[in-house]
Amino acid sequence: MNRHTLNPLIKPEMVQPSRQGYRVKGAFNPGAVEHNGEIVLLLRVAEDCIPKDGYTSVPYYTFKNGIGTPEILEKSLNDPNVTLKDSRGVVYKGQDYLYTLSHIRLARSRDGVHFAVEEKPFIYPCVPSECFGVEDARVTKIEDTYYLTYTAVSPDGWATALAVTKDFITIERKGLIFAPPNKDISIFPEKVKGKYCALHRPHNQGFGNPSIWYAESTDLLHWGNNQCLLRPRNTKWECFKIGGGPHPIKTPEGWLEIYHGKGKGDKYSLFLLLLDLSDPCKVIKRGEAPLVYPEMNYEKDGFFPNVIFSNGLVVTEDGNILLYYGACDETACLIETSITELINSF
Amino acid sequence: MNRHTLNPLIKPEMVQPSRQGYRVKGAFNPGAVEHNGEIVLLLRVAEDCIPKDGYTSVPYYTFKNGIGTPEILEKSLNDPNVTLKDSRGVVYKGQDYLYTLSHIRLARSRDGVHFAVEEKPFIYPCVPSECFGVEDARVTKIEDTYYLTYTAVSPDGWATALAVTKDFITIERKGLIFAPPNKDISIFPEKVKGKYCALHRPHNQGFGNPSIWYAESTDLLHWGNNQCLLRPRNTKWECFKIGGGPHPIKTPEGWLEIYHGKGKGDKYSLFLLLLDLSDPCKVIKRGEAPLVYPEMNYEKDGFFPNVIFSNGLVVTEDGNILLYYGACDETACLIETSITELINSF
Repeated sequence: MNRHTLNPLIKPEMVQPSRQGYRVKGAFNPGAVEHNGEIVLLLRVAEDCIPKDGYTSVPYYTFKNGIGTPEILEKSLNDPNVTLKDSRGVVYKGQDYLYTLSHIRLARSRDGVHFAVEEKPFIYPCVPSECFGVEDARVTKIEDTYYLTYTAVSPDGWATALAVTKDFITIERKGLIFAPPNKDISIFPEKVKGKYCALHRPHNQGFGNPSIWYAESTDLLHWGNNQCLLRPRNTKWECFKIGGGPHPIKTPEGWLEIYHGKGKGDKYSLFLLLLDLSDPCKVIKRGEAPLVYPEMNYEKDGFFPNVIFSNGLVVTEDGNILLYYGACDETACLIETSITELINSF
Repeated sequence: MNRHTLNPLIKPEMVQPSRQGYRVKGAFNPGAVEHNGEIVLLLRVAEDCIPKDGYTSVPYYTFKNGIGTPEILEKSLNDPNVTLKDSRGVVYKGQDYLYTLSHIRLARSRDGVHFAVEEKPFIYPCVPSECFGVEDARVTKIEDTYYLTYTAVSPDGWATALAVTKDFITIERKGLIFAPPNKDISIFPEKVKGKYCALHRPHNQGFGNPSIWYAESTDLLHWGNNQCLLRPRNTKWECFKIGGGPHPIKTPEGWLEIYHGKGKGDKYSLFLLLLDLSDPCKVIKRGEAPLVYPEMNYEKDGFFPNVIFSNGLVVTEDGNILLYYGACDETACLIETSITELINSF
């Protein structure tokens, strides 16, 4: 588990705002995939509005004919219709707005380390269920198609949408495949016993805490046979919740999954899980200690301190793993490891 | 909207406990369907344990080889391992237990008014996701098969399971079709544009309150294309949440759906909705005033006061509707109405 010496690979200042008046607060939680000899990252770019004394300015989207348009609501703090709500947003004339809004931006690299960030958003709010932003993309390649899942945020909550692309130029939206509240969807790269499989993280709360669930599909669009797969342990690393990370990796020993836990002090760390090859609902091994936890300055200090969150990795032909992760909801970083190292870490 | 003069049709004292040491607290929220010339109700029967001075007694299920067995945990209140938690349950050795546990019991009638309640449970906890009970069954007949949805409750939250039957003697479980937190699933009685359709009620919370959602399926087992269909209005009747009721009724004017709202004072009442026949995501009409709200003593006073909740109805050949409902989470009642009366009530 070697953090790259050039970490963070991508910082907010390397990313152009998507619109005049916006500024980039974070370029983090990258989905990752190899395509045409390049490593493609799907960065989550979080933007807010450039502040102006005496005013509140918030980004939002309007919709017309299925096309989203970014806008800025700028109102005097003396306006009686403005109510500052909490650190997340404001209310104007009874309507909620959030201070930051995320979209998905592509970054490309030949070596997996030096990235060119595209100027324009790749996935941005296009339907009302995305009006507060799109976040945390994951990519799974199945045959010649890339399946992208991402969190869609709106006044109706956060849910998970599916989109498909073959070229990372055009995408086709496929709607919300998991109803709110549900995120952290990791689609397996191939069918198991004739069914597509996914890990998901409903905000299940009975007498437990949010856990990792399993679901099946015949077409990647419709999902069922939901089963609770893995519950958070009552440890300082996982006591609040756990959720799936990048897509599971097929190995002779089983499906290798890197998941995240949220523990005491709101720290996010990464753990390792091994699932049965022919029955992914069966847990074979679960790492006791975190694979990695916030240790470096760029992981401990930032927009949201003490967060290591991974939703993207690339496995090379020789079994090495480029594990990309977001640090502090602000930057994109890289750890180099391998299937062998991970398997031996149990 | 004529309440039957014999209401409540079914009271807890008419229902035999499912096991020695249990007592029936409620026989309510009936699913309903016509089968072989009989009206069949799928009652939710809630049971707790007969109290014993100085002891806490709670019902629970154990599981072995896929079979659930009802048990009673009886512990002295002086036992240091016992913690009385709140009005809902106790903790014993770190494990939560609930005071009441529900199963689904059949009741049969020739006239739709006088019911014989079966002695044995029809659906009872059989898998760990149901260990705290099964609740609020809904029935939709499609061709020659009855599709039953019900809420499965466990430490992992409340989700919705599907089971199928052709004879109301044997059932086949099909797993959790909607991940937690999600209930109030109403399956349409036929496909629309080649897809099965359902209303569902995820516990979506962003800046709104839990709403009625729409989903589609190709096989009734896997669901997708989730869309928010109807949000609660900020009225005294709906301000907390809304959820689907019995299966939608096909009429020439559109799909007629009776849904419930939870409003001020935790009152539950029923409302009417008309959805487009060929595009059920399109709302044509929505009733302004409640169709019915708690007025009668048996609707205002009971286990959980001021609740009218419907998840079952039967449409006769001449367009009359037997609308069954639960009152106060305690009894099962009947309102007689008709498609014409409902359509004219908008």
